[in-house]
Amino acid sequence: MPDHAISPTRAEDYPEWYQQVIRAADLAEQSPVRGCMVIKPHGYAIWEHMQAILDRMFKETGHQNAYFPLFIPLSYLEKEAQHVEGFAKECAVVTHHRLELNAEGKLIPTGKLEEPLVVRPTSETIIGAMYAKWIQSWRDLPVLINQWANVVRWEMRPRLFLRTAEFLWQEGHTAHATREEAIEETLRMLEVYATFAERDLAMPVIKGPKPAQERFPGAVDTYSIEAMMQDGKALQAGTSHFLGQNFAKAQEMKFSSVSGAEEYCWTTSWGVSTRLIGAVIMTHADDDGLVLPPRIAPTHVMILPIHRSEEERTAVLECCRKLEADLLASRFADAPIRVRIDTRDIRGGDKVWQHIKQGVPLRVEIGPRDLVSGSVSVSRRDQPPKQRASMSLAEFVQTAPKLLEELQNGLLEKARAFRETHSVRLATIESVLDFFGPAEGQGVQGGFAHVHLADDPAVAAILEPHKLSVRCIPLEGDDEPGICVVTGLPTVRRSVVARSY
Amino acid sequence: MPDHAISPTRAEDYPEWYQQVIRAADLAEQSPVRGCMVIKPHGYAIWEHMQAILDRMFKETGHQNAYFPLFIPLSYLEKEAQHVEGFAKECAVVTHHRLELNAEGKLIPTGKLEEPLVVRPTSETIIGAMYAKWIQSWRDLPVLINQWANVVRWEMRPRLFLRTAEFLWQEGHTAHATREEAIEETLRMLEVYATFAERDLAMPVIKGPKPAQERFPGAVDTYSIEAMMQDGKALQAGTSHFLGQNFAKAQEMKFSSVSGAEEYCWTTSWGVSTRLIGAVIMTHADDDGLVLPPRIAPTHVMILPIHRSEEERTAVLECCRKLEADLLASRFADAPIRVRIDTRDIRGGDKVWQHIKQGVPLRVEIGPRDLVSGSVSVSRRDQPPKQRASMSLAEFVQTAPKLLEELQNGLLEKARAFRETHSVRLATIESVLDFFGPAEGQGVQGGFAHVHLADDPAVAAILEPHKLSVRCIPLEGDDEPGICVVTGLPTVRRSVVARSY
Repeated sequence: MPDHAISPTRAEDYPEWYQQVIRAADLAEQSPVRGCMVIKPHGYAIWEHMQAILDRMFKETGHQNAYFPLFIPLSYLEKEAQHVEGFAKECAVVTHHRLELNAEGKLIPTGKLEEPLVVRPTSETIIGAMYAKWIQSWRDLPVLINQWANVVRWEMRPRLFLRTAEFLWQEGHTAHATREEAIEETLRMLEVYATFAERDLAMPVIKGPKPAQERFPGAVDTYSIEAMMQDGKALQAGTSHFLGQNFAKAQEMKFSSVSGAEEYCWTTSWGVSTRLIGAVIMTHADDDGLVLPPRIAPTHVMILPIHRSEEERTAVLECCRKLEADLLASRFADAPIRVRIDTRDIRGGDKVWQHIKQGVPLRVEIGPRDLVSGSVSVSRRDQPPKQRASMSLAEFVQTAPKLLEELQNGLLEKARAFRETHSVRLATIESVLDFFGPAEGQGVQGGFAHVHLADDPAVAAILEPHKLSVRCIPLEGDDEPGICVVTGLPTVRRSVVARSY
Repeated sequence: MPDHAISPTRAEDYPEWYQQVIRAADLAEQSPVRGCMVIKPHGYAIWEHMQAILDRMFKETGHQNAYFPLFIPLSYLEKEAQHVEGFAKECAVVTHHRLELNAEGKLIPTGKLEEPLVVRPTSETIIGAMYAKWIQSWRDLPVLINQWANVVRWEMRPRLFLRTAEFLWQEGHTAHATREEAIEETLRMLEVYATFAERDLAMPVIKGPKPAQERFPGAVDTYSIEAMMQDGKALQAGTSHFLGQNFAKAQEMKFSSVSGAEEYCWTTSWGVSTRLIGAVIMTHADDDGLVLPPRIAPTHVMILPIHRSEEERTAVLECCRKLEADLLASRFADAPIRVRIDTRDIRGGDKVWQHIKQGVPLRVEIGPRDLVSGSVSVSRRDQPPKQRASMSLAEFVQTAPKLLEELQNGLLEKARAFRETHSVRLATIESVLDFFGPAEGQGVQGGFAHVHLADDPAVAAILEPHKLSVRCIPLEGDDEPGICVVTGLPTVRRSVVARSY
């Protein structure tokens, strides 16, 4: 056994470590279809837990789910010029609706479509077209709808969970009678994402508007939550867009107001995707594999029976089942504790290491000696693999919710401390470039630099060659007005500069 | 107000009645994308409840969820000859991966793919290719995976929920070491579907194998559950396929057995789709709109406050909220009762009719006079719209679960009685053709004819011109061997003949 279950380690080769964690935790793999991934059961179970929490939060904020077509006619995309420009280069295009076998037994596309269809890269245009039909009067507003769906953006350099041609996401689309209400909605959903990221993913995020050149194509304002990965890079973990009346005008989405006047709606859209799984990996995983925040872990407690004889097996399993039943009756984060017994007939060491690599928060070993003493041996995923605490069965049942809570909070605090350690306030553009060093370097690439910068093309022009960008202008936190270190223009507060995924 | 909320009625024009029920209940509508529907919030909420129940049943039978690519390379489809033949005529084909604006501002597909991709019509081939990589030894078996996904089968004559180019479904795909185990799985999932249909959808079904020409392309055996709609037609509501080694051979899905020999896997696949929403409509809806079985109803109890003055409003709403809280604390079908208060400021009559048309099982009206008497006025969706029962608040809270149970059971019994009334046992092919009458007739089109028929092309040849087919050969029920009324061949039991969707 090497020192660590994952090779290379984060320090040795971060991108390759990431791939190896995914492989070791059996989360996903590349499919034979270029750029498309297969999300394997363990990875998908994590997504299901994320979905369940987010879906509840969306419904609590008044949204309903619906489902819109996978295909978008080209004429719909053409209506919003910036939107087309943003997505045209990465669209999967359906041009035919049947296949025929030719003389050599090869399938040939036939049945050419009059108008090609794009596989949705996002659904503003098709959903907008439906809203335009549904909305007549102010009484029909607001429309607050979300959809869980797959989307396709052709990727030349795919990376599992981070950039794939197809990915799963949710996209909220809302229409409002006033600008104020739409902005309020945009910020409400940004807050939902930030709460979810910090409370459930144990991932601290900075939320704020993006500079102009980083906006969603067609948006008036794009807000994002930005998290720091363990290599110091930023990952945009969710976005909420205030679309103004841009899409409403492109789609003729109008309503008659209380005064009887005909007005264009104000719309928003917001989304998070399976990219969040990548974010969780790069925030919490270590050189032994995945580390899951308990709130999204498919299994909270893995019980591992240890036995040699058949007689031992019967007695140990009985004890395991008793523990399972007791745990199922106790609760963590408003739901029953998720517990499993691993009864597979494989080497105990392999079993333990599999659950370490898969990130299970708590492991409990029960062997014949434990039966005699009435105790169990408890290991936490946030402690070294060999560290164990012995406690009585009853004590473990009683403290399991508290241990999970500790683990959850500990991960958040650790991530927050990492971010603080790798964040600086800088006052000149030279110090910024110096802080980040060369773009192709190994190890932690700087982190977050908080810098006074104007939302100006001159800033991007200086940052881009160094693969740097302004991630967002934080909405919150201790800060003050200043002067842009590039343009000399006045700024309201500092922006966050980083390398990013 | 006409006699009925839906026009035309079932008797007047069944297909048009179906469309009007969907419109009146606000379930779905055609999108501007040919053949693709938009599932609106009320329709999608019904699907979410179906999904939640099925997903639990799949997990209880040992399955895990995962996600596989939307796209399938043509070369994968080519591998299984029958499979290609079955799906080639209805495939959406992606041929390009980007768009460019031409001189006239029109988008033109560019970036031609070396190998075109098909939007999955079903996923046996792509999932099989992954399983072939994952499975090495008998220790890796069985593989029991399900995916919730969208699929596309180009439809020339789309009908909401029943036949749409894109639809939502689940597809289970399993691989086993033995033929027996795979057959057992096929029948287990058929049983899961039958239980779900009868217990949750209150829709009686007949389960059994389909004749050869009705099999899934590439399957050794296809089993289905068949339900009778209110026009007497059969609707195939779910299928479970025993694929033998056909797909395993096409995909080189092999394993080394306990004895060390290399063997092909035995596989199954099974699925149900949003078509089930169409099945529920056509089984239970009446001339006033949708009627929802409580187990899949998004709202069990709709509370309707009645008031004129602001003072009345305050008092009535307080009482409604108290009732809501009490109901939320009681349970139906292992979950809290789903209750909503409709506080919208619209005409009371419009409100009531909306909930009738949307199929809400129980409506409760509370007005100022009820406050005085401490009573509520309760209406059931399975009784005439104007029928009301007055009972005390406490009595309603106590009996609500029982009322829902009664409603659920009543719908099943009514549907079963309808099916029995429209089922016959016939002994000659002439009597079969006579029973069904002309294919274009109005009203109930015969129903189910139980007839001794061999699984032989001669049978299909006689039935097809009359738009009739053998739906399945029932696995259960009182029956005996006989002689095929077409071929004279011996039969083990009767088959079910019907017109179908």
